[in-house]
Amino acid sequence: MKIFDEIESEVMSYARAFPRVFNKAQGEYLYDEEGNQYLDFLAGAGTLNYGHNNPVFKEALLDYIQQDGITHGLDLHTKAKREFLEVFSEKILQPRNLSYVVQFTGPTGTNAVEAALKIARKYKGRENIISFTNGFHGCSLAALAATGNSHHRGASGVSMSGVTRMPYEGYLGDGIDTTAYLDKVLSDSSSGIDHPAAVLVETVQGEGGINAASIEWLRNLQDVCTKHDVLLIVDDIQAGCGRTGSYFSFEEAGIVPDIVTMSKSLSGYGLPFAVVLMKPDLDQWKPGEHNGTFRGNNLAFVTATAAINHYWSDDTFARDVLRKGEYIEQRLERIVDKYGDGNMTTRGRGMFRGLNCVSGDLADKITSEAFRNGLVIETSGADDHVVKTLCPLTITDANLTRALDIIEAAVSKAVKGEGVPVERNFFATEFEEQTLAGAA
Amino acid sequence: MKIFDEIESEVMSYARAFPRVFNKAQGEYLYDEEGNQYLDFLAGAGTLNYGHNNPVFKEALLDYIQQDGITHGLDLHTKAKREFLEVFSEKILQPRNLSYVVQFTGPTGTNAVEAALKIARKYKGRENIISFTNGFHGCSLAALAATGNSHHRGASGVSMSGVTRMPYEGYLGDGIDTTAYLDKVLSDSSSGIDHPAAVLVETVQGEGGINAASIEWLRNLQDVCTKHDVLLIVDDIQAGCGRTGSYFSFEEAGIVPDIVTMSKSLSGYGLPFAVVLMKPDLDQWKPGEHNGTFRGNNLAFVTATAAINHYWSDDTFARDVLRKGEYIEQRLERIVDKYGDGNMTTRGRGMFRGLNCVSGDLADKITSEAFRNGLVIETSGADDHVVKTLCPLTITDANLTRALDIIEAAVSKAVKGEGVPVERNFFATEFEEQTLAGAA
Amino acid sequence: MKIFDEIESEVMSYARAFPRVFNKAQGEYLYDEEGNQYLDFLAGAGTLNYGHNNPVFKEALLDYIQQDGITHGLDLHTKAKREFLEVFSEKILQPRNLSYVVQFTGPTGTNAVEAALKIARKYKGRENIISFTNGFHGCSLAALAATGNSHHRGASGVSMSGVTRMPYEGYLGDGIDTTAYLDKVLSDSSSGIDHPAAVLVETVQGEGGINAASIEWLRNLQDVCTKHDVLLIVDDIQAGCGRTGSYFSFEEAGIVPDIVTMSKSLSGYGLPFAVVLMKPDLDQWKPGEHNGTFRGNNLAFVTATAAINHYWSDDTFARDVLRKGEYIEQRLERIVDKYGDGNMTTRGRGMFRGLNCVSGDLADKITSEAFRNGLVIETSGADDHVVKTLCPLTITDANLTRALDIIEAAVSKAVKGEGVPVERNFFATEFEEQTLAGAA
Amino acid sequence: MKIFDEIESEVMSYARAFPRVFNKAQGEYLYDEEGNQYLDFLAGAGTLNYGHNNPVFKEALLDYIQQDGITHGLDLHTKAKREFLEVFSEKILQPRNLSYVVQFTGPTGTNAVEAALKIARKYKGRENIISFTNGFHGCSLAALAATGNSHHRGASGVSMSGVTRMPYEGYLGDGIDTTAYLDKVLSDSSSGIDHPAAVLVETVQGEGGINAASIEWLRNLQDVCTKHDVLLIVDDIQAGCGRTGSYFSFEEAGIVPDIVTMSKSLSGYGLPFAVVLMKPDLDQWKPGEHNGTFRGNNLAFVTATAAINHYWSDDTFARDVLRKGEYIEQRLERIVDKYGDGNMTTRGRGMFRGLNCVSGDLADKITSEAFRNGLVIETSGADDHVVKTLCPLTITDANLTRALDIIEAAVSKAVKGEGVPVERNFFATEFEEQTLAGAA
Repeated sequence: MKIFDEIESEVMSYARAFPRVFNKAQGEYLYDEEGNQYLDFLAGAGTLNYGHNNPVFKEALLDYIQQDGITHGLDLHTKAKREFLEVFSEKILQPRNLSYVVQFTGPTGTNAVEAALKIARKYKGRENIISFTNGFHGCSLAALAATGNSHHRGASGVSMSGVTRMPYEGYLGDGIDTTAYLDKVLSDSSSGIDHPAAVLVETVQGEGGINAASIEWLRNLQDVCTKHDVLLIVDDIQAGCGRTGSYFSFEEAGIVPDIVTMSKSLSGYGLPFAVVLMKPDLDQWKPGEHNGTFRGNNLAFVTATAAINHYWSDDTFARDVLRKGEYIEQRLERIVDKYGDGNMTTRGRGMFRGLNCVSGDLADKITSEAFRNGLVIETSGADDHVVKTLCPLTITDANLTRALDIIEAAVSKAVKGEGVPVERNFFATEFEEQTLAGAA
Repeated sequence: MKIFDEIESEVMSYARAFPRVFNKAQGEYLYDEEGNQYLDFLAGAGTLNYGHNNPVFKEALLDYIQQDGITHGLDLHTKAKREFLEVFSEKILQPRNLSYVVQFTGPTGTNAVEAALKIARKYKGRENIISFTNGFHGCSLAALAATGNSHHRGASGVSMSGVTRMPYEGYLGDGIDTTAYLDKVLSDSSSGIDHPAAVLVETVQGEGGINAASIEWLRNLQDVCTKHDVLLIVDDIQAGCGRTGSYFSFEEAGIVPDIVTMSKSLSGYGLPFAVVLMKPDLDQWKPGEHNGTFRGNNLAFVTATAAINHYWSDDTFARDVLRKGEYIEQRLERIVDKYGDGNMTTRGRGMFRGLNCVSGDLADKITSEAFRNGLVIETSGADDHVVKTLCPLTITDANLTRALDIIEAAVSKAVKGEGVPVERNFFATEFEEQTLAGAA
Repeated sequence: MKIFDEIESEVMSYARAFPRVFNKAQGEYLYDEEGNQYLDFLAGAGTLNYGHNNPVFKEALLDYIQQDGITHGLDLHTKAKREFLEVFSEKILQPRNLSYVVQFTGPTGTNAVEAALKIARKYKGRENIISFTNGFHGCSLAALAATGNSHHRGASGVSMSGVTRMPYEGYLGDGIDTTAYLDKVLSDSSSGIDHPAAVLVETVQGEGGINAASIEWLRNLQDVCTKHDVLLIVDDIQAGCGRTGSYFSFEEAGIVPDIVTMSKSLSGYGLPFAVVLMKPDLDQWKPGEHNGTFRGNNLAFVTATAAINHYWSDDTFARDVLRKGEYIEQRLERIVDKYGDGNMTTRGRGMFRGLNCVSGDLADKITSEAFRNGLVIETSGADDHVVKTLCPLTITDANLTRALDIIEAAVSKAVKGEGVPVERNFFATEFEEQTLAGAA
Repeated sequence: MKIFDEIESEVMSYARAFPRVFNKAQGEYLYDEEGNQYLDFLAGAGTLNYGHNNPVFKEALLDYIQQDGITHGLDLHTKAKREFLEVFSEKILQPRNLSYVVQFTGPTGTNAVEAALKIARKYKGRENIISFTNGFHGCSLAALAATGNSHHRGASGVSMSGVTRMPYEGYLGDGIDTTAYLDKVLSDSSSGIDHPAAVLVETVQGEGGINAASIEWLRNLQDVCTKHDVLLIVDDIQAGCGRTGSYFSFEEAGIVPDIVTMSKSLSGYGLPFAVVLMKPDLDQWKPGEHNGTFRGNNLAFVTATAAINHYWSDDTFARDVLRKGEYIEQRLERIVDKYGDGNMTTRGRGMFRGLNCVSGDLADKITSEAFRNGLVIETSGADDHVVKTLCPLTITDANLTRALDIIEAAVSKAVKGEGVPVERNFFATEFEEQTLAGAA
């Protein structure tokens, strides 16, 4: 690992918590160079909803490369892009009665957010954007301005203007609907909150600590936006692509955002890819007005097409995600009951779940102990106090059970301080009997 | 192409100039669905220095995918990243006596620029950045603030602060060294130019119209930076990776920037990849302070490693680029002499060349005519008045010759207005006799 | 009035509501050119706490001018400035155990706010300032950024950054302490509210609609500031100089702001004057770092000195203000009871009172009718829905009674729509019997 | 002076250079408490063009106060304001064929600049403003953004956006017309200089070091503005009101700015006063959109009216200013010749003159020595390297001669380092024989 110490920047983060050199991955498994096997509950921070190197997409990807399909296409029309657009239209948009235009941006979530904010501001001719406490939208400047985390904000080096922060659901305590506060400041010509172009929201705040907005709050939010002629942008980069149990995280609420940003699991295979979906009348872009060299990452189009075809042609996958999500919820609730001492709570929706440990120290002890037992798992939240169970949606039931056993044991040890005899890789042989297919 | 009209955003740009559906590519060739063959002088806007689907990298890529190597790794240590760092250190940095730390950013150029500006501002504790007239650095907000193009700037939707524009070399006319002006404003406590953290510069401005700074100007610029304790950032996203005839575009000037941004041809295969190189003491990042989901695009590490090993183990490739660059220059000079009518000029360095047609209309006629003859070629500059000859560096001599013949014919037709009988794909059979290997 | 139509800017405001040419004033009386007399309940928008052309100050002013005292002194030491500082120290600061340093800024309230924000940001090395919904702090850019009114904000023409808006007391409804929300966002590292340098607050929001913060809320606010190492700035430009019944409006709460801005009635005579008071350790200014040509308006020093000597040598004046304030409150409550129909409310503290008519139309009818009866009176609030009773503190009891009679009659007419026989200047003879001295 | 040390802020500036307590002034004389007499070549930093306490205005002022004329009038119509508007229209605007609308802003120069920038941005719907190297426009935020001085800029505490700096005449060396550079960046869609709403310029930069633009440069500047549909704002706060030998400083150039800001000597008596003049179609203000409590400082209207009537009813005064200006220039040239050693130069126009000592240390020695000999005089420029001869325009010839004698002696001593026997107040008796009337 010498070379990493020598010339990789100190900005590295996960590599500190999981100091191994990984060289192979399949489904929910990660392997390091020494042959150790891990269960992956980090899953590319929500990018690997379909597991690592999903064999269905892998085949499509290898075929495409073999045939010298276009790899890098700028925004040229390509066959791979057409197939993606067709299947995205037919299997995602049409069944949901959504008529979005698709913008291919630079293939990172933050770039999609930058483009979404631009088009919203341009369309409405207003500068202000409403974003929420504990929201996370990326680290390039316009997205960072909408991001709550002071760790990231502190590095901006320059003023971040054009964003007003409002309290997310629950932030002012139970029983207070924070959309009513938003409605009030937008109704009050002397509130000091400039009429915004758009509200930017995550239906579940991942980095913010797995805060899941209620259906009612999301509907109220859309109503407030409509009332005040403000666009609603759902940042579905982490919550989308099935994580909450439906393709888009906002489906359950029955709302229709004006703009949606997508990335992370969109390509299915972990390849860089991002799009902005917008209602057709919003598409006021001039040619090339927002661009990016890698906006035509055709390998990602190929795997994204395979992902949609395979997992979203019917509702089997979605129902399976909800089923597993309920199981995770039950297990986390049991942990809260047994070890929570009245403080811990569970959070989230679908397979976007977390265990709120209140204390960042405690959460760190839990994830550290879990890692010693072969589980790669991380925290989020302002104080890194929420243990995130962000496994591939395709995980086998047996591995899901095993991982939650490891988490429970880790909580037990962290809370009670009792040593538990740990056999490294104790689950290895058992896992090998499992198929890798997951929900597929 | 119906689906593109129906649901792809109006932001598409190149697809308008080249309205075909492409489905295959190899080296300097592009193919559309109808089997038509094109020579590619756009080359992914500088991303395909080694040609499309370079067979050397392709093999490495297929092997890696076959073996279920890590595809998406966040910033975890992986074998593929280690190999990239080792070969980058050994074959790029060490032979050039450069001791940079490598930061993996979100895999787009604009993200690398955002990170570079952040670390410069953080390190110096100053907000201001000097960038130059006609410079292009990306479309996310901090990078866009440093970009000159009003077409892109106009879409920001929010104030872009923290950047002061200075005239690039030649902007104030011949004989005026614009670095002296920079020196003056930095020396004058009442100039209104706040003491900057850094100067951000392209050694050759690609989007700005193939403006190549002289060796002397670059040296003076570094001297002014040193004198005023200001960091020098070279944005080598388009000019780097061999385009000018050396790996880094600043080598010829003998300067050593404090920070270098790289992307585009870095992966070699057109895969999204970007890094920031910085002198070790600048690496003041806190863990995860600037992040991005796709900063560990391991497939790109694999092809980048292959690219360096294959093309940069000795100076054969670099010398070949210089040789071809001189040929391009000669051909362009001849065109200027024959058709320029005292107005046209040539521009650039290495294989980063352009034909300044002064008029955007004329340049458009030339590229349109060239496309009718099978050459994909674009313009750049404030008025799209410069025809860019941005072919793969690996192009065969025969194809290079042929492409320049097409350009010359197009110029002739555009200038003289005379129709020339054109046989679509007239060069097809001849080209097929060529090998695809290029300089390799 | 032709010249006003011809060459005075459309920006004029009060002149539209009171379309007369005024040429004389004394105490609470205004006179127009035609000899009509008016009672002044606008009082220079809070600038004429001691009435127009107060005879005590007038004498001092005439003497000083006669003797060729320094009129314009930049920041040179002058005898007039020394005397002001001495009396301000002896009679205002020392009796209240306040040890502030005095900065003389350009002689407008907005300039004092600009200076206060600068020194707070400089001292703390932070950019963010917390200001409140419905707050008003001025129209120059930094002050405007902290101002809530969209009418004024909309004219900025440029981004206003560096300020975060929080809800003022009562904004989230009864029973919700908005300082707890402030505490929460400052405690939450992921709230998106950058650690502020200071909180900027009016104890009574004048332009915002005569919203008077409670003693408890002000104390909580100071506690939150202390807890988070944030400066507390009280903008006492309108509420200070006795308006609420004490010299500083924050005395009743027993809090000690780090910085206080003063202007409006500070000179006593309506002369331009403004200061920033700051705790000594905050005084980190470099010489001349914030300046202004008229910061040494010595005529204002002379009248300000006379004002303090005359009205603030003991508590007689303050007690009289409280007494009259209670009378105003009683009269307004009676109006609310009789005509409010369950909607109207009273607002304010001391002689800083208002009648909340909920409807701007209704408030406008009331003030228009009052003006027809010889009372100059204005509205404030987001919808101009609050009738402000901002008379000179020195008003005679008889005139105060009469003015409130006029207001009550105007409310009656506006609410009931019944015409009331009005004799223009009906109170003139009666008033003439009154002395002009007021509380003095 | 104890009280100043104890409670006046460290921001004081001139009081440090001239550590006396002044208590009386007349014409060009200042007196301290100990009866010492000084000649005033600071003149309120350009505010006392007509001298201290000019007896003509004094009488008008005393009368007005005696009669209880309106002192503080907000923006109400008053007789005093009408008279000012009438005389300003009749004697200033009409004879010069200028048809400006007059906006009364808060009575400080910086407030007038804030208003001018607002209306320009609002009218053009653009944010960017061009200002110049070494320009000074005030210390409130929007004006400060246009100000060059880093001493003042450094205190902003927040980003200053919306302004682009361009080189003033001569900044790029002789023979380079910097308006051509401005023309180029405005013609170049990729220059990075956003299309500005306005250019803000001083015809003579006072604080910047008495840099006087040539007639030709000013005309070229107006042409560039016209060509690019950009407003021209002349900040005539220091150079106006006769300082350069005409009422407006731009008259000699024959240009007609779209907007003019005025303050400083506008009231004549040193009273706070400021206006914005704008072409009628620019007057797009909504009522009260930009306001300020002291925008109706009627005492200033009275003295301003007297000043215009007395000094600007014919060209006698203007010609006298030019005559004295030429004398100053001759004396300064002689000093340069005798002591300049090839380095010193003279600068300026009319009675807006300075001696460029190149070295700030030398300039400081000169002004310190002059002060020891009874002359209050200051420096300006980026390095405080220019000695400003900013005396009242009404100074007697004898006192002007004497003052220049003192300056010459001070230069001699500073340059040659030789002690000169100085008799404190040596000129006192002689001065007393002079009349105080000046050009009047």
